[in-house]
Amino acid sequence: MYMPASLFRKLAVKIPLATSLKTYRWELFHSDVFAGIITAILLIPQGMAYALLAGLPVQVGIYTSLLPAIAYVLFGTSRVLSVGPVSIAAIMVASALSSPEIMEYGTPIQNAMILALEGGLILCLMSLLNMGNLVHYISQPVLSGFTSGAAVIILISQIPHMIGLHVQPCNTIENCVTQIPTNINVHEMGLGLLAFSLLIIMGTPLSKLLIYFNLKKSLRTALTKSAPLLSVISGTLLVTLYSLQNTQGVDIVGSIPQGMPEVSFSFLEISTEHALVLLPSAIFISLIAYVESVAIAKVMASARGEKISPNQELVALGTANLASSISGGMPVAGGFSRTMVNYSAGAQTQIAMLIAVTLIAVVLHSLTHTLEYIPTAALAAIIIVAVTPLVKLKSIFQIWHQDKADGFSQAITFIGVLALGIEEGIILGVVATVFNYLKRAGKPHLAVVGRIKNTNHYRNINRHNVETWKHLLLIRIDENITFANINYIAEFIEKEQKNYDAKTIVLIFSSVSYVDTTAVSTFKEMIAGLRLTGTIIHLSEVRGPVFDKLKKMDFFNDLLPGRVFFQTNEAVTNVTKTLN
Amino acid sequence: MYMPASLFRKLAVKIPLATSLKTYRWELFHSDVFAGIITAILLIPQGMAYALLAGLPVQVGIYTSLLPAIAYVLFGTSRVLSVGPVSIAAIMVASALSSPEIMEYGTPIQNAMILALEGGLILCLMSLLNMGNLVHYISQPVLSGFTSGAAVIILISQIPHMIGLHVQPCNTIENCVTQIPTNINVHEMGLGLLAFSLLIIMGTPLSKLLIYFNLKKSLRTALTKSAPLLSVISGTLLVTLYSLQNTQGVDIVGSIPQGMPEVSFSFLEISTEHALVLLPSAIFISLIAYVESVAIAKVMASARGEKISPNQELVALGTANLASSISGGMPVAGGFSRTMVNYSAGAQTQIAMLIAVTLIAVVLHSLTHTLEYIPTAALAAIIIVAVTPLVKLKSIFQIWHQDKADGFSQAITFIGVLALGIEEGIILGVVATVFNYLKRAGKPHLAVVGRIKNTNHYRNINRHNVETWKHLLLIRIDENITFANINYIAEFIEKEQKNYDAKTIVLIFSSVSYVDTTAVSTFKEMIAGLRLTGTIIHLSEVRGPVFDKLKKMDFFNDLLPGRVFFQTNEAVTNVTKTLN
Repeated sequence: MYMPASLFRKLAVKIPLATSLKTYRWELFHSDVFAGIITAILLIPQGMAYALLAGLPVQVGIYTSLLPAIAYVLFGTSRVLSVGPVSIAAIMVASALSSPEIMEYGTPIQNAMILALEGGLILCLMSLLNMGNLVHYISQPVLSGFTSGAAVIILISQIPHMIGLHVQPCNTIENCVTQIPTNINVHEMGLGLLAFSLLIIMGTPLSKLLIYFNLKKSLRTALTKSAPLLSVISGTLLVTLYSLQNTQGVDIVGSIPQGMPEVSFSFLEISTEHALVLLPSAIFISLIAYVESVAIAKVMASARGEKISPNQELVALGTANLASSISGGMPVAGGFSRTMVNYSAGAQTQIAMLIAVTLIAVVLHSLTHTLEYIPTAALAAIIIVAVTPLVKLKSIFQIWHQDKADGFSQAITFIGVLALGIEEGIILGVVATVFNYLKRAGKPHLAVVGRIKNTNHYRNINRHNVETWKHLLLIRIDENITFANINYIAEFIEKEQKNYDAKTIVLIFSSVSYVDTTAVSTFKEMIAGLRLTGTIIHLSEVRGPVFDKLKKMDFFNDLLPGRVFFQTNEAVTNVTKTLN
Repeated sequence: MYMPASLFRKLAVKIPLATSLKTYRWELFHSDVFAGIITAILLIPQGMAYALLAGLPVQVGIYTSLLPAIAYVLFGTSRVLSVGPVSIAAIMVASALSSPEIMEYGTPIQNAMILALEGGLILCLMSLLNMGNLVHYISQPVLSGFTSGAAVIILISQIPHMIGLHVQPCNTIENCVTQIPTNINVHEMGLGLLAFSLLIIMGTPLSKLLIYFNLKKSLRTALTKSAPLLSVISGTLLVTLYSLQNTQGVDIVGSIPQGMPEVSFSFLEISTEHALVLLPSAIFISLIAYVESVAIAKVMASARGEKISPNQELVALGTANLASSISGGMPVAGGFSRTMVNYSAGAQTQIAMLIAVTLIAVVLHSLTHTLEYIPTAALAAIIIVAVTPLVKLKSIFQIWHQDKADGFSQAITFIGVLALGIEEGIILGVVATVFNYLKRAGKPHLAVVGRIKNTNHYRNINRHNVETWKHLLLIRIDENITFANINYIAEFIEKEQKNYDAKTIVLIFSSVSYVDTTAVSTFKEMIAGLRLTGTIIHLSEVRGPVFDKLKKMDFFNDLLPGRVFFQTNEAVTNVTKTLN
């Protein structure tokens, strides 16, 4: 079959995988297969754990590791990002699913599918409208405060599962604390702590030991990253050996339907109200999923010297979520731990992910009975170990030390997430960030200037030795003039007018490239006020677009007898003639 | 009694009335008395009308014209601003009082008093915290869109009263339209239209006629401004002559308790939940009251060549609202029409307002029975004539023509107020304004620069004939670097690096006086990315505070092997040595 190179190039724009395949060398295959196996070993227990965290049956987590991952492989620009169920999205789903007004409308699994569907549509729409930049308004302090807060909520919800305390899923502290019952199942606690200890020991300590014994890096990764598998296997063995699920009432995963998820479009039957009640949560979940995915993809791309395209990532993540919604899954994102495993196990291209997906499919097809006796306490331990590093209390103090305003935004987001809820915390953080931003923007740089002798250059009188004139005040405005700073500017001008007993003021607009209508009308009022005290305002060096705007707003009539001069020097020559 | 001049000066800071009294000349008294009488004639019917608009008994509007006006006279900085019940605050009160969750907690009159109390406390608190600037974030397009929208709602709610249609107070269009019953009381309609015609004819047409007959300005004002009084008197006469209230079921004001309002602190007994449920409305009402009052005070001050102090206005308006709450009143503000009457009737100082208050007190003390038979249709006509000029549809198109972004903010506020409600409309407008602001701020001015031959000056290569060097790119960043613009800046740098095939980039920070933590960490990522492609970044002309922030954030380690140069020229000399 003849396939012209140009077709490949076209495909490469919309399907970045094509580029990878075009340049694929079979030497890479060995690495990709190895990384795929290791990733699959992590993804099965982690997917199950995150499904439980979201308040869904465990198989949803496994289903969510199939089609969405393939969708991202097809459309995503990162070669190593692993997309599937992640902890932060899972807790947001849990928060949505536990809201009474949402529960009214359908089963958790239906609602999760609709959240994925709506999230996917939102991301695709944002890509069409070129709105990827919107997420930049979620500043890093807000994102990090949010992540820490959400991780604390996850810990609070999972610690009881690990130590055998039976509580319902919850999303705010108060809710969680009051729900704690007093009896602990000691056997569950034992299983949970066993899994926890294995995960801890097989992390950094084992890694250091293996470095000491000079093991190959990929083998080291294989051993340390199989900790979740080993925790799950040891727990399962103990449960089955002593029939703990019957004799001690230990919680186990229970039977999982064998076979692939059914691809279904049943969500097309939902009512408008049902769709609307889930929409706000879907917006938050998809935005956060996108921001976190792009952040991880960027880190990976910079480590591997690649580029990612934020707008293409919208399409990829949107498609992944749509794929999740038609295959019985929940909202997905690029996950940090799953991506790190894939990367550090040596994945070279998207082929690694495809191999992992194949293995997971094999397990679903014929091995689900082996998952039945996994104690849920072990899955809780896996979640706890995965999210603990996300709680960065130290970072809050550090950011505070670096920048009070950013520290405040971060702290208020963190506290907001814990005290008010996940979505409320994000809103609070964004509002705080924008408010601080406007507050600072409200104090622009303004300079009283004078002329450097024998030149046409005008400079700040506080920094340069310059020539000035009695009753003449020259003020350079160094920023665009808007509702946010016009009052500060007007007050500065009025204050300096008094200081210098100025009869004439020349405002130098060389750095002003935009004025809004609030600014112009406040200027008009100020000019009228100063005129009553006998002070005239002139403008100089007004840029084209600003001149047009002032003309449209009929400003020059209000400026009279003030004039607009092309050059500041021209204004000074003119004015000094009449003053002296 | 000896009273040193310094005491007067001290008082004058906190009680601006002292200044007026100190310089009071008895020639002014004649003008003040005349203006006081005219103002009182307007304030009684207008106060009653606005109380009805707010959904309160008519006497509340008269009570609200007493103590609050005195409080403002004592503490306010404007000599002619008239503070009392106003239309916009009244419709906001109506909207709050008609909310079902607020109605649960108390009678309308109790709730109105608590709204005034909370609003007063909020304004005083804002003054203490020096937060008067906060209101600048309500830009003029938002304020004007809001005023037009609120005025339309008032018209929709009052036209039925004027034409004898019996509807309940309502605050959204949908609500209002569905409530309209089909039967009209023709006699009420007649009375309403009579009042309406009188008000219209005695406005501009009468004024023009009197000018034609060369009448003195103050007399002209007296005649034209007594239109509300005349409308009310003619209506009352018709009602009493034909006993219309009994024979035709015409709505009248009804009996009004005689005597001064009781000063009471009964609101101190309210529950916390009651206080909290009213708080959001109180915040909106007091902020809007403050913004509108200051706007009117500024116009008056500029017309009279005086100064007002925004922070002192917070105290004055806060105290006026507290005074209203302890004397059975509703939230107050400086009103445009009441102030204009006072001003154009020739008021010279605050004495005019004190005389008006005295006259109103006399009416309350012994003449309330004369108010009993006023038809409510006449009061509705007064409101309609007062608020119609506030609907400025033309301004929406005009602002749109002058500035698309401001036009959008204004239009969305207007539509939001009508479609969603008063408070929701304001929020929508503020969000739209801030969003447009951030969007523009996200595209800062960046310039690729070169050296003007034989100088140390570096200028934009697109505007000046400058010297450049192969593989060396100089970029000047003309704005503070924050989360809002860092992505744009990073993309610009990466694009220009490719354009110029630069191996070395010098970023000139001469205009950067602030960087936030999001900016610094994005810069770090960008530098790491460029380093992989073999491009090194240097900085030059970094200001002190920015240098300190970068050091705190450990930026200079990530910059390596890039360096920070004091002067751009120094950087160029250094770099070109190694490049060539």
